[in-house]
Amino acid sequence: MSSVFASNITVSVFGQSHSPAIGVVVDGLPAGHRVSFEELQALLDRRAPGKAPWATQRKEPDIPEILSGLVDGVTCGAPLCAVFRNGDTRSADYREIRDVPRPGHADYTAHVRYSGFQDVAGGGHFSGRLTAPLCFAGGLCMQLLRDRGIFVGAHLLSVGTERESGYDPVRVGHEQFAAVHFADFPTMDREAGERMKRAILAAAQEGDSLGGVVECAVTGLPAGIGSPMFDGMEGRLARLLFAVPAVKGVEFGAGFASAAARGSENNDPFTVKNGQVRTVTNNHGGILGGITSGMPLLLRAAFKPTPSISKAQKSVSLSALEDAELTVHGRHDPCVAVRAVPVIEAVTALGVYDALLDAEGHV
Amino acid sequence: MSSVFASNITVSVFGQSHSPAIGVVVDGLPAGHRVSFEELQALLDRRAPGKAPWATQRKEPDIPEILSGLVDGVTCGAPLCAVFRNGDTRSADYREIRDVPRPGHADYTAHVRYSGFQDVAGGGHFSGRLTAPLCFAGGLCMQLLRDRGIFVGAHLLSVGTERESGYDPVRVGHEQFAAVHFADFPTMDREAGERMKRAILAAAQEGDSLGGVVECAVTGLPAGIGSPMFDGMEGRLARLLFAVPAVKGVEFGAGFASAAARGSENNDPFTVKNGQVRTVTNNHGGILGGITSGMPLLLRAAFKPTPSISKAQKSVSLSALEDAELTVHGRHDPCVAVRAVPVIEAVTALGVYDALLDAEGHV
Amino acid sequence: MSSVFASNITVSVFGQSHSPAIGVVVDGLPAGHRVSFEELQALLDRRAPGKAPWATQRKEPDIPEILSGLVDGVTCGAPLCAVFRNGDTRSADYREIRDVPRPGHADYTAHVRYSGFQDVAGGGHFSGRLTAPLCFAGGLCMQLLRDRGIFVGAHLLSVGTERESGYDPVRVGHEQFAAVHFADFPTMDREAGERMKRAILAAAQEGDSLGGVVECAVTGLPAGIGSPMFDGMEGRLARLLFAVPAVKGVEFGAGFASAAARGSENNDPFTVKNGQVRTVTNNHGGILGGITSGMPLLLRAAFKPTPSISKAQKSVSLSALEDAELTVHGRHDPCVAVRAVPVIEAVTALGVYDALLDAEGHV
Amino acid sequence: MSSVFASNITVSVFGQSHSPAIGVVVDGLPAGHRVSFEELQALLDRRAPGKAPWATQRKEPDIPEILSGLVDGVTCGAPLCAVFRNGDTRSADYREIRDVPRPGHADYTAHVRYSGFQDVAGGGHFSGRLTAPLCFAGGLCMQLLRDRGIFVGAHLLSVGTERESGYDPVRVGHEQFAAVHFADFPTMDREAGERMKRAILAAAQEGDSLGGVVECAVTGLPAGIGSPMFDGMEGRLARLLFAVPAVKGVEFGAGFASAAARGSENNDPFTVKNGQVRTVTNNHGGILGGITSGMPLLLRAAFKPTPSISKAQKSVSLSALEDAELTVHGRHDPCVAVRAVPVIEAVTALGVYDALLDAEGHV
Repeated sequence: MSSVFASNITVSVFGQSHSPAIGVVVDGLPAGHRVSFEELQALLDRRAPGKAPWATQRKEPDIPEILSGLVDGVTCGAPLCAVFRNGDTRSADYREIRDVPRPGHADYTAHVRYSGFQDVAGGGHFSGRLTAPLCFAGGLCMQLLRDRGIFVGAHLLSVGTERESGYDPVRVGHEQFAAVHFADFPTMDREAGERMKRAILAAAQEGDSLGGVVECAVTGLPAGIGSPMFDGMEGRLARLLFAVPAVKGVEFGAGFASAAARGSENNDPFTVKNGQVRTVTNNHGGILGGITSGMPLLLRAAFKPTPSISKAQKSVSLSALEDAELTVHGRHDPCVAVRAVPVIEAVTALGVYDALLDAEGHV
Repeated sequence: MSSVFASNITVSVFGQSHSPAIGVVVDGLPAGHRVSFEELQALLDRRAPGKAPWATQRKEPDIPEILSGLVDGVTCGAPLCAVFRNGDTRSADYREIRDVPRPGHADYTAHVRYSGFQDVAGGGHFSGRLTAPLCFAGGLCMQLLRDRGIFVGAHLLSVGTERESGYDPVRVGHEQFAAVHFADFPTMDREAGERMKRAILAAAQEGDSLGGVVECAVTGLPAGIGSPMFDGMEGRLARLLFAVPAVKGVEFGAGFASAAARGSENNDPFTVKNGQVRTVTNNHGGILGGITSGMPLLLRAAFKPTPSISKAQKSVSLSALEDAELTVHGRHDPCVAVRAVPVIEAVTALGVYDALLDAEGHV
Repeated sequence: MSSVFASNITVSVFGQSHSPAIGVVVDGLPAGHRVSFEELQALLDRRAPGKAPWATQRKEPDIPEILSGLVDGVTCGAPLCAVFRNGDTRSADYREIRDVPRPGHADYTAHVRYSGFQDVAGGGHFSGRLTAPLCFAGGLCMQLLRDRGIFVGAHLLSVGTERESGYDPVRVGHEQFAAVHFADFPTMDREAGERMKRAILAAAQEGDSLGGVVECAVTGLPAGIGSPMFDGMEGRLARLLFAVPAVKGVEFGAGFASAAARGSENNDPFTVKNGQVRTVTNNHGGILGGITSGMPLLLRAAFKPTPSISKAQKSVSLSALEDAELTVHGRHDPCVAVRAVPVIEAVTALGVYDALLDAEGHV
Repeated sequence: MSSVFASNITVSVFGQSHSPAIGVVVDGLPAGHRVSFEELQALLDRRAPGKAPWATQRKEPDIPEILSGLVDGVTCGAPLCAVFRNGDTRSADYREIRDVPRPGHADYTAHVRYSGFQDVAGGGHFSGRLTAPLCFAGGLCMQLLRDRGIFVGAHLLSVGTERESGYDPVRVGHEQFAAVHFADFPTMDREAGERMKRAILAAAQEGDSLGGVVECAVTGLPAGIGSPMFDGMEGRLARLLFAVPAVKGVEFGAGFASAAARGSENNDPFTVKNGQVRTVTNNHGGILGGITSGMPLLLRAAFKPTPSISKAQKSVSLSALEDAELTVHGRHDPCVAVRAVPVIEAVTALGVYDALLDAEGHV
């Protein structure tokens, strides 16, 4: 059940990088929602490759075809299936890595897991391309959340050692999300964004790549969503965030920094503001005991650098069982974190919307 | 289903801090396993309170009573239920916080979530005491893993700003785990441990608390366990790790540090060693594409400082809906990360054993 | 996960016939419900053995001890654990059947399934005694349904070839349920009940047993509950009904009889009555397309005769792998269907309440 | 999650009768299985409409397009998505029933469930057409079972009051399955089949329809598969069987007949045959305590008569909330049980294969 998220809402992702198509079935959408394809396409376009020097040059229009679930553009309660045809594939590029796995990639582990039958071309089901259907599913959830006054926005907090200031955990607002959504590079601070771009291009020119951190906030979320223990908001969201290829760390609120703090610094004092219980600071990231507090939900996901680099690397020949050298060909993002910004929004929206349905009921 | 982990193995945790008992039902254990109660008790004792100045003074013997699932000490395939009676409770301590929620605690969010019907005494179901049944369930999994040559060991990597060196991600071994298991303070480096203790006692004397990071490794794990996307090892383990109260961040391998690295630094070259595919470094923490690589699995969990501090804090009165001051009474750990070390081992073992059952089948 | 029902509400049943205790954890109950222990005990007493010549003479008071989930008798949102201590056990009775499995029982299949480690005494986890925790969990759901004006009632439709008239599928009402609940034998028609009793006693005197059919109705259920396909009401309820030991058939509405009918006979015409859409007849048993219609939900469960009979039977020796003869000792119901009436109510209530939570949301 | 079966193997069915396509995602197939499309197509063709006077005249070639999950016709461990384009649709036929629901159909319940947004055309997601993807998914499982020496075969046991003899519960064999698979009408007894055909045509000529019973057997199944309680084989299979539209009853082995029997008649004596434990009779239908016994698994599913009949029927106008008369147009099977035979095989194979994976492990 590796590629199925089965909860109040169920998302079944399918496809390989070079199979006829990739896609997703979303089961559990409420009937009566008019889908905004414009918004969906805008989200997909932010993820789509081929647009800028910091993204892979593979061209994919990423326009979903809807096979089911709608009547005249409105959800009818039946599962919605969206399909993205795979077009610009160059499978020949991947012949070598069937025997010599790329360091940092799933080539070797998939080889063991699937006894050598895995689809190697383009990374198969492990390809970052599979984040397109995730964006589709999460994009639907973003619309359903927006109708409830809940907004989700992510931005690129850092690339390598370049970092911008990040969301104000207490005052983060919808306008900042919009600014990032319409920018050509997903930072709030244009100047920091320029530094990040330069760092990426510098790494790319050396045949190298860079990691980065994406920060995401959810505003407008009511208090009381989530549960203790295994259904805590952190755990539910973490499972979805780690489903995004290349994520190696997840933190909420002050996260790892809180481990270095004292309780008197880290505790967020409660206060009453306009008749509402709020906290003065937001080190808890909007979650206490696994349950939302009504403050902005704040999380960060750490992306490792793209493992596909054009520098020669040390690997092994699986057939000869001996050391080998590998030079990765193909087209790759020098920093996956950039295009991952809408993906983090999408999976966060999916997790938050799904948690809301605990309280609201679902189809 | 907040307190049920339902996968190949199912763990249903119940109880409140001051209810007659807490406990756990473990469904899906293989028949024919002779339970080592000595090992279980040793794990529980490492978690148990009342032993040292850095732990709460509440005394609980934490001796499980087995209600079902065994015949003459051997699992029979039926669900195993273990119960821990609650003894040394002082419910009177918690009267005030029904109206004035403790900053950093789940008091307020539980109040909203359960419409004021939540059990306030001792933190109710949100209490750290509920980690005892987690240890019991995970301790059983540790035994089942050990029988397969798989070992799990955690240690206290840092407390506040004091830090020890941490596991060598390539060469970490079973002996290091044993050393920590038998120590009175769960560090590998005795000297670093002394500094941490001093930091904790200093904070405690000021009525304050400290956060910390627990690092955990799993050795002996075969390659090919786990799956891509929603069933990736990182996501499966993260969901369990965030179920532990006070965890606010989780990372695997180099984690957040990899976000600052270049691909050429972060990629772990493959090599053949004794006829086995290994990696030279282990920034991937034993997981690639959600699937184990055969290298040590390495993770870190960030604990926030204990929110219960004896310093006066700002909060609100929920009945009057106005600001209020709160002084927390009761007995609390000045640094929950210390006693959390066996808990992180337990939930890691649970997640790893459960993932193994994907491949092995289960009861 | 054999003994866990994990849906909106989660029910984890544990225990063996002769283990220290049996019990259940119910996770997902709404906070704020004051449990009526009087009603729970009344349901449990209808199931309890030792009261009449048609029931096993094993004496069990079946009084639940609540370990968690309540504050002053009111649910607090935390999992509720109830335990029944096992008292009057005679394990010596079961020594023989470890080698010579009882025909019609799970002795042989459990032996294969659990590699010989299963608990043989009293039937272990396969014992009908495990229906006590099912009644407890379902009894809670009956109270939650009753608060919504939804009532569940079952009766003994037939024993062997003796049969009573059964519920009127259109006009069945709460009063009929009450009459059965307070009767000493669970039929609506006293005279038919006397015939059934006589048939049971006659079979018992010959060292034999009888099967029977339990019919159950749910009234007050709104239209629109359930879903198509795998979450249809029939399938959800069937899974729970077949969880009750000895059930070998389940049907809804006209059930198997509808297979012999014509569409013009079987289709239930719609009509408007008091401004409500109703059907004139109720061959559909209140379910169309897996979704409730607002008409009474009607189902029947067929129980095989108690396999434990005192007549000598043919079996095998598992150790010698040769034919053997077996005479079953111990105390057994001559017709399990009688005491199963409240059990069918309980699992039906569980399934219906769980389905309602799809629409209502849940804890 | 209505149309997702999420267990060891996950099956997500999508589509409406008149949406661009219907289809299915199967997640959890083992890597390395070469799919026989010939066998799949043979199964689909047995279900396909338009071939005979007893089936709807709607023409659908029912040829699956594979979007993912295969490399050169061999499963690669990634989810397999198959799509069936919808061709010969006549949506105009369904305008009236948006307001006047068809008796015996899901029109009214779907209207309530989905607040009037459901897809009415052709029955939408409730259409029998959705059994094509079920056959596809189950057909894959039949191949995987066949590779283990396990065979699944169903036949039409009765239509209306016409009945054939049925499978011998002890000696039923693979050859009988093959005979039915290649027949133009799915009975074992040609003469009984002729009587059933005549009964169907007679009903059809009167604008009426007939119900029927499908019997299914599984041979070659090892003992020890399944679990007690909620994961018993009966309950697992029943949930899948009731997912097939028009099924109103399910029984295993002697089923409802066992409720009328005595224990001494119904108990199946064990015996040793060729060094194997077998039963002399098979009233238990190959399942004891929810676990397979190694004897043939035997089940029956009762189908109600097709609710769409051309006779005028009484219904209501949902807009006017008053009684109305309805004459159903469109093309319908006069007896859905006939084409349901391969569907029952398919869902049975799915449930049995999924249960086998408990023991074997899964992808």
